[in-house]
Amino acid sequence: MIENIKFDEKGLVPAIAQDADTGEVLMLAYMNEEALRRTLSSGEVWFYSRSRKELWHKGETSGHRIKVRSVWKDCDSDTILIIGEPTGPVCHTGNKTCFFQKLTRQDIETSQPEEA
Amino acid sequence: MIENIKFDEKGLVPAIAQDADTGEVLMLAYMNEEALRRTLSSGEVWFYSRSRKELWHKGETSGHRIKVRSVWKDCDSDTILIIGEPTGPVCHTGNKTCFFQKLTRQDIETSQPEEA
Repeated sequence: MIENIKFDEKGLVPAIAQDADTGEVLMLAYMNEEALRRTLSSGEVWFYSRSRKELWHKGETSGHRIKVRSVWKDCDSDTILIIGEPTGPVCHTGNKTCFFQKLTRQDIETSQPEEA
Repeated sequence: MIENIKFDEKGLVPAIAQDADTGEVLMLAYMNEEALRRTLSSGEVWFYSRSRKELWHKGETSGHRIKVRSVWKDCDSDTILIIGEPTGPVCHTGNKTCFFQKLTRQDIETSQPEEA
């Protein structure tokens, strides 16, 4: 089934990490096939770093890993969802989740409209 | 702030939709700037369809829209998270969420290893 995963032209697939206990969406990063293999076989989350162009064992620097509880693919097999247990704050900013900045209607009212 | 969003080389950003009530991750699709503007201004989710190459008002065919409760961006501004209320099954298969297929260790054991 892993061969059915639709990696993009760069060999990557977006992977969402969600906190198994709180339900919070923690982060989105990318996996290549090897990162997905290691995630499934090791029980800890691996990504592929697009900036460093290398496999990235989540938490290898911070020590804050994500332990895998379950792994899902979406209907068209081009997105992965990891349900897991973070061992510390997931975000490099120290926040529990990477999604801590809210966007509102004001953000578009104060910025340039597309047609301008 | 919308101008700080890092759209990729195709002008797109991945957007995760999460059910505000159940916490379920429902789907991932892509937004261009106009889709994000419409999502923020209309209170309903808009995407950009990569296959049809056009703006896509989620539910325009099925009638199953996603009403926006809040919109978030991640720490490096290259992913959007929508917390919303789906008015019906989100997935085109009729499932409540697009993530209904589980991957397990068996999926890699029965498939070709990368080094082979």
